Amino acid sequence: MVNYLEIGRQILASQPFSQFLGAQLDEFSQGFAQISLSLRPEFLQQYGAAHGGVISYLADNTLSFAGGSVLGPGIITSEFKINYLKKALGERLVAQAKVASAGTRQVVCTCEVWAVTGEEKILCALAQGTIVSIAPAAETNN
Amino acid sequence: MVNYLEIGRQILASQPFSQFLGAQLDEFSQGFAQISLSLRPEFLQQYGAAHGGVISYLADNTLSFAGGSVLGPGIITSEFKINYLKKALGERLVAQAKVASAGTRQVVCTCEVWAVTGEEKILCALAQGTIVSIAPAAETNN
Amino acid sequence: MVNYLEIGRQILASQPFSQFLGAQLDEFSQGFAQISLSLRPEFLQQYGAAHGGVISYLADNTLSFAGGSVLGPGIITSEFKINYLKKALGERLVAQAKVASAGTRQVVCTCEVWAVTGEEKILCALAQGTIVSIAPAAETNN
Amino acid sequence: MVNYLEIGRQILASQPFSQFLGAQLDEFSQGFAQISLSLRPEFLQQYGAAHGGVISYLADNTLSFAGGSVLGPGIITSEFKINYLKKALGERLVAQAKVASAGTRQVVCTCEVWAVTGEEKILCALAQGTIVSIAPAAETNN
Repeated sequence: MVNYLEIGRQILASQPFSQFLGAQLDEFSQGFAQISLSLRPEFLQQYGAAHGGVISYLADNTLSFAGGSVLGPGIITSEFKINYLKKALGERLVAQAKVASAGTRQVVCTCEVWAVTGEEKILCALAQGTIVSIAPAAETNN
Repeated sequence: MVNYLEIGRQILASQPFSQFLGAQLDEFSQGFAQISLSLRPEFLQQYGAAHGGVISYLADNTLSFAGGSVLGPGIITSEFKINYLKKALGERLVAQAKVASAGTRQVVCTCEVWAVTGEEKILCALAQGTIVSIAPAAETNN
Repeated sequence: MVNYLEIGRQILASQPFSQFLGAQLDEFSQGFAQISLSLRPEFLQQYGAAHGGVISYLADNTLSFAGGSVLGPGIITSEFKINYLKKALGERLVAQAKVASAGTRQVVCTCEVWAVTGEEKILCALAQGTIVSIAPAAETNN
Repeated sequence: MVNYLEIGRQILASQPFSQFLGAQLDEFSQGFAQISLSLRPEFLQQYGAAHGGVISYLADNTLSFAGGSVLGPGIITSEFKINYLKKALGERLVAQAKVASAGTRQVVCTCEVWAVTGEEKILCALAQGTIVSIAPAAETNN
């Protein structure tokens, strides 16, 4: 039986940028991933909320993990779109992504990013993107 | 006469996340912005290229500066879309954004992100997004 | 009590392009809309499935109805993104859109487009977009 | 020597929906396509401008032609994003798309859609999307 969470955490640990920001893989199963991040002061923009770039990193990476849960480890984000919804004020950012449609070489995933403080959570961004396998035929990179 | 570059650099300096990553505003004029970043080892993904999250940060922020050059300082990114094109291998990432269409409260901008090593440069991502003024009527946040 | 469906059908009837294609509003409530279309031979592309332009029309319009259910009748689509997932082969296209996050002047909605034949249905596209109120402050148009 | 325009017009003629709307391929070369459409009354929305669905059809199809000029005839639109910029009021819609980055199986293109009346033209939409080859490995459809 595949231990998704253990494998996923090894992959996250192999991404220098994810380690640099302190991202954690909370849940990982066939078609689903949750990654979270403590909101440190250096992750903010000038208005006191999380910078959009932190949110887009989290969306991008969680989309790619959801895609990888179906396609296998050799994958990249080909493209995504994100809408920022509410000010990302909170102690942590939590992103949940799931597979909407899967082929053998490419999957489309959606992602919600929440700003969380204790029991309260605010939906602060919504993303949708394409994850592709990087076996020989693929060409883009993330 | 407005000194765009000086004002822009003060705004970038007020963004903790941009300071954390070491982003620099190279050029800033009516309708145009260029922001760059040295590619430090901690900005990479597991395949040795810049992580998509670093590229998406840079696209998001450069889009917002281009938009702000027209709308004024109180702006946020409402949404954007990014396509990753080529492996982002290089010494620096350089993003150039320009305004495609402007209204009084909202502008649409496009952005190219290049991976640069000496004289060589690779177009590694393309983005398109909406920047909105955050005077009283606006509600989303970046 | 507001009769959403009746009002919505009047609005759809006032859109020449929706009439031209024969779109029907099946369901309409606070935060939700379903619009469908019989797949006539003239709506296809060269491979025998529905043309992407028919699917994108349906996504765009259903997103705007979902947004309008919250914002009121004077709205437009500001932007959207669509991923085509599977060949749109079927008797009808059915699009369902819902509001993901609402402000007073702008909402973000998501939409699924299904190709339906009898009891069978295939998820053929996924869209996400921004609907804005076109009271005096708004500037874009759809 | 390849006669792009002649081949392209045969492909456009083989798309029932493009024929239904009366789309015309004006220019077609390596990496570039221009498709236009007379704005008939049945193409409008309730406010008197072209319906977003007509504009998105034109963006989708012109993107796919630009992509096809590089990838060859067996291609589909995998995904795209569109921003509506200004009211599409005019006699004709003219869309111009070009290739931004090309691989052997997938290209990313951008597209501008103009509303044209005589010598006047208004940039009414901007799109960006991915066109993929539908040789055996591909799975999505447009």
